[in-house]
Amino acid sequence: MLDFSSDYTRPGHPLLVDAIAKNQGTQFLPYGTDAVSSRAKARIREACRAPKAGVHFLLGGTQVNQLAIDALLRSFEGVIAADTGHISAHEAGAIEHGGHKVLTIPHKNGKLTADAVAAYCEAFYADGNHTHMVFPGMVYLSQPTEYGTLYFREELRALRRVCDRYSLRLYVDGARLAYALGAAENDVSLADLASVCDAFSIGGTKCGALFGEALVVPDPALTPQLFTVIKQHGALLAKGALLGLQFDALFAGALYLSIGKRAVALASLIRRTLTDKGYRQPLVSETNQIFLTLPDEQLEALQQQVRVSFWEKADAGHTVVRIATDWATTQDDVDALLALF
Amino acid sequence: MLDFSSDYTRPGHPLLVDAIAKNQGTQFLPYGTDAVSSRAKARIREACRAPKAGVHFLLGGTQVNQLAIDALLRSFEGVIAADTGHISAHEAGAIEHGGHKVLTIPHKNGKLTADAVAAYCEAFYADGNHTHMVFPGMVYLSQPTEYGTLYFREELRALRRVCDRYSLRLYVDGARLAYALGAAENDVSLADLASVCDAFSIGGTKCGALFGEALVVPDPALTPQLFTVIKQHGALLAKGALLGLQFDALFAGALYLSIGKRAVALASLIRRTLTDKGYRQPLVSETNQIFLTLPDEQLEALQQQVRVSFWEKADAGHTVVRIATDWATTQDDVDALLALF
Amino acid sequence: MLDFSSDYTRPGHPLLVDAIAKNQGTQFLPYGTDAVSSRAKARIREACRAPKAGVHFLLGGTQVNQLAIDALLRSFEGVIAADTGHISAHEAGAIEHGGHKVLTIPHKNGKLTADAVAAYCEAFYADGNHTHMVFPGMVYLSQPTEYGTLYFREELRALRRVCDRYSLRLYVDGARLAYALGAAENDVSLADLASVCDAFSIGGTKCGALFGEALVVPDPALTPQLFTVIKQHGALLAKGALLGLQFDALFAGALYLSIGKRAVALASLIRRTLTDKGYRQPLVSETNQIFLTLPDEQLEALQQQVRVSFWEKADAGHTVVRIATDWATTQDDVDALLALF
Amino acid sequence: MLDFSSDYTRPGHPLLVDAIAKNQGTQFLPYGTDAVSSRAKARIREACRAPKAGVHFLLGGTQVNQLAIDALLRSFEGVIAADTGHISAHEAGAIEHGGHKVLTIPHKNGKLTADAVAAYCEAFYADGNHTHMVFPGMVYLSQPTEYGTLYFREELRALRRVCDRYSLRLYVDGARLAYALGAAENDVSLADLASVCDAFSIGGTKCGALFGEALVVPDPALTPQLFTVIKQHGALLAKGALLGLQFDALFAGALYLSIGKRAVALASLIRRTLTDKGYRQPLVSETNQIFLTLPDEQLEALQQQVRVSFWEKADAGHTVVRIATDWATTQDDVDALLALF
Repeated sequence: MLDFSSDYTRPGHPLLVDAIAKNQGTQFLPYGTDAVSSRAKARIREACRAPKAGVHFLLGGTQVNQLAIDALLRSFEGVIAADTGHISAHEAGAIEHGGHKVLTIPHKNGKLTADAVAAYCEAFYADGNHTHMVFPGMVYLSQPTEYGTLYFREELRALRRVCDRYSLRLYVDGARLAYALGAAENDVSLADLASVCDAFSIGGTKCGALFGEALVVPDPALTPQLFTVIKQHGALLAKGALLGLQFDALFAGALYLSIGKRAVALASLIRRTLTDKGYRQPLVSETNQIFLTLPDEQLEALQQQVRVSFWEKADAGHTVVRIATDWATTQDDVDALLALF
Repeated sequence: MLDFSSDYTRPGHPLLVDAIAKNQGTQFLPYGTDAVSSRAKARIREACRAPKAGVHFLLGGTQVNQLAIDALLRSFEGVIAADTGHISAHEAGAIEHGGHKVLTIPHKNGKLTADAVAAYCEAFYADGNHTHMVFPGMVYLSQPTEYGTLYFREELRALRRVCDRYSLRLYVDGARLAYALGAAENDVSLADLASVCDAFSIGGTKCGALFGEALVVPDPALTPQLFTVIKQHGALLAKGALLGLQFDALFAGALYLSIGKRAVALASLIRRTLTDKGYRQPLVSETNQIFLTLPDEQLEALQQQVRVSFWEKADAGHTVVRIATDWATTQDDVDALLALF
Repeated sequence: MLDFSSDYTRPGHPLLVDAIAKNQGTQFLPYGTDAVSSRAKARIREACRAPKAGVHFLLGGTQVNQLAIDALLRSFEGVIAADTGHISAHEAGAIEHGGHKVLTIPHKNGKLTADAVAAYCEAFYADGNHTHMVFPGMVYLSQPTEYGTLYFREELRALRRVCDRYSLRLYVDGARLAYALGAAENDVSLADLASVCDAFSIGGTKCGALFGEALVVPDPALTPQLFTVIKQHGALLAKGALLGLQFDALFAGALYLSIGKRAVALASLIRRTLTDKGYRQPLVSETNQIFLTLPDEQLEALQQQVRVSFWEKADAGHTVVRIATDWATTQDDVDALLALF
Repeated sequence: MLDFSSDYTRPGHPLLVDAIAKNQGTQFLPYGTDAVSSRAKARIREACRAPKAGVHFLLGGTQVNQLAIDALLRSFEGVIAADTGHISAHEAGAIEHGGHKVLTIPHKNGKLTADAVAAYCEAFYADGNHTHMVFPGMVYLSQPTEYGTLYFREELRALRRVCDRYSLRLYVDGARLAYALGAAENDVSLADLASVCDAFSIGGTKCGALFGEALVVPDPALTPQLFTVIKQHGALLAKGALLGLQFDALFAGALYLSIGKRAVALASLIRRTLTDKGYRQPLVSETNQIFLTLPDEQLEALQQQVRVSFWEKADAGHTVVRIATDWATTQDDVDALLALF
């Protein structure tokens, strides 16, 4: 059966699986101290034009968010996020487990605006009782957002200026970053992220890797002893070379970018075709996700032939579903999918 | 160069790497809800003769210890461990990060005795101030221990009786469990563990897997909503099938056991030969680790040709080192190693 | 200067101060194990008609909320509260510091409705991703609310039925409980609270005591070793008799109730008079707090003669202020206040 | 019955009780923002010759330790303490509840030596695995110690030098500080503490106050937003003036010091007399506590006439007990006590 339910259904991109398989019996130094991991980190620093950046390989998206937030916040600080942010709703309280409140702001197409963040902070400091409240200490956003939309360079710079004004750190969750980098509309490079963020993640799991996220901290003085913090979080992989091998393959050439481009191109084709056929797309995504409102009967029939994701109920008789492409989606898959509409 | 430094230097056993590589492009349901993971869990339940057990796949040793301890303890309880226990010294405070104190007891050959635990608890409850202290809530031990020694069935049963008397949960860290199961002296089966423990782990990372530990909870009512707790800890793997594929391969037949047997047999050969050659072995390990006291000059020369682990300084002129075999160590490797002595 | 800014400006009711002063040199057993504390607890059990209840004396409102929530929730659970709830906004993240998320629901006059809680829980369990989210584990409400409004007996019973349906604990923050008990409209007795709640607090600090809140847990099996948890929270008072002496005085006769009645009667007089004079009261409080919208110039003039609390800006030219009476407010004070309008 | 069981049996010194009683109906600004609290803080700064110090009034000993340690440590750091330290054994895991490991070192007469701390740190940084371990981040000690012994100025300076060498903060728990300041042998002033410590507490609860500890942070930049952290810990007293009134009375003149001197003088008399009578005192205390080894039968008879504290069993037939004097002990009490021996 066709499966467009998500971008993390398949173990991994063949080049990454091969990198591991070829080295199946090679002996590496443990905990990421091996030479391949060092090389992979160097490649990422170069791609980000951030020669001093700390680069840390972690295992999954919630883990990297939880760790970065714990490492960058002080105990009396919380993190500002869109009410739709992954950390707000879908991480089972991982941030609160670390002791920090998620301070939610209404989103616009999944995005936070610099104005909304500034307004939040202004109101906070104007409140005579603010020392009885959680201080805003960070802005969390994701690129692309939960809704598949993109921040543009000027938007990030405006957010950075607000962060500077109110002593906030800026963290970007890049769980699906390849699909932002690969989007036609995108104008935010890795180097841009490194220049505006205090930390950001480069997602592997949803972008071709078996697992793994790279946490980039352009100024590593912000996160002293992060290796130990990672260990303390239960997040240190004994065989760290498994992460090094994968990120080395992703960043040796342009693989990471090309994975994104390919998936977005196919998603765009699906989007255009469905628009042409008159289907309603409630969210204007620009990346590898398509959101579609369908009558419930049509959805039921469709699900006999393709797996898609439930997103939310639109009304009594309609449902919003999500369709995702990934690095392995083929033109044939897309043709077969579109033939069902 | 020869490398006997640890049992987690190589990415993984060929059969496990193949299981992943063959399925590189297969689409699986996420978060361990796929059919292969279900089958792997069923195999583990069967191997443990624990048909109702909760089986949860996690990523690493510290993570599984931290999670099990958090899930099984109440806020006012701590965990009793040998002062040499991994959680006492080498997990960067992961247990305290979860809010629990590690209550240490001196070890005997790396082991806790039932008498020592009973004495601790008796003294605790006899202390008029004990409600101002951390209640013992669990016994943590590892099989094999940090020193490569083994608990025998009667020792575990005696510990269980003490646990019952003082309302303690019993948790066994099986990071290297294959090497216990594969030891000639061992009389503790997986089913024995399931019958005496409230929870235990079956280590993959150090026993042939790329990564992964199976947490077994014979009575799952003890750990409600553990899936959500795992997510909250940042410990949920999106592509859970990667763990399912590996544990399915390990437990489809006798692979897990045979990995242990083979490594222990070679370790025993090394141990015997070195003993015959008159080398001092300060710790009487029975599993895949050999501990050896060497004059510092000899060690320095040795390290030009083989990588071994520093364990501790014995005295001003001598050092204890650790030699470990694993699933991939060959007779040739062993011969080459022994030729150096 | 007149001061109607809050109900915690004065050290304490004369009878309570006297109870301490008279015993200034008496020697008591420590940590609340003394006879006076035992007698005070017995009086509270009797007043609540809860003969088996656990009664624990704590020091302040945030502390008792944080402790009760930590003690009653499991790690994967959060607490449902009105978005205006004290724990949501004004406790500096004390609940998240304990690892729990506050799950907010919009309020009606400061209150949560049973329907809103039921709808939240129904949506939660209907969500296919709910195991990736924080489970609702408790309903938090305050009696009276932040807005000075009251829950009625039938409303609490309806909330209890929802709690039973969804396995939620019900906790009532009674920081100002005397003023609820003393309100003309109130139909909720201490015994009613003990019959519907899993835990509730009886506030001392804002109701005549120097400091102190009594936490009542009708079924103490819900909170094992709570004494130790209190110690672990840094919340155990060495000289516990100071709390015992005060609660003994409050509950020896009807002092607690009469304190509330007196303050509410004067507040009602202020409310009625200001209404008669045409002042706008945006919140319909029934207890010891009056909320008043004033033109900014009038407020500025007023503040030369009486201290009131800023509540919020109503619009560009108007401000909402809070006026509070307490156990020490006199008819003369009220006359002097009303003469200013 | 005579009661020498501890120094926290009586509500409080008459001058402090009077300070509160006289102001029973005075209206104060809340949360310690009142003028009396400000004055009390100024007096403490002056007594410590630390004009810029942050001074924060808290409620109890465990609370102030937990708060100071949380505020001064980073997540990957633990606190070095004597194995007999209060935080090690008798705070119910309050430090671990805040996420930090207590790193214990054997004591000498209840004291840590600079050499022992230096040796711990040297061994830590020499350990090749130290990044997998909890970093030492602070030295905790108490003045006087649990055993009633004293640190001398040169000892504290030596500890400070070790702290500087290894980037440790130095925190002194002064729960019984008045009895150190009042000891004949003492050469450590408040100003000395302010010059060597990153933070220290001035205990009220055991030194004449009803309750209350002053936390002094000579360089307040070390603890940003500590007011909010206090609130988050549930440790902020609404009626902060109650603490201000007491510390104002203690530090307006020499009351704090004289309370200590008087109690120590009587304790010294008891010590000398018992020594002369041939009683064994296993711990050489210099402050307000006397430790005495008694045959069990004699102890049983004694306890019919005076309350003393159980300390520990010495051997099968002997017990160590503690006798404590306080600000209210009279010469008559002492004569009556000594008549029993």
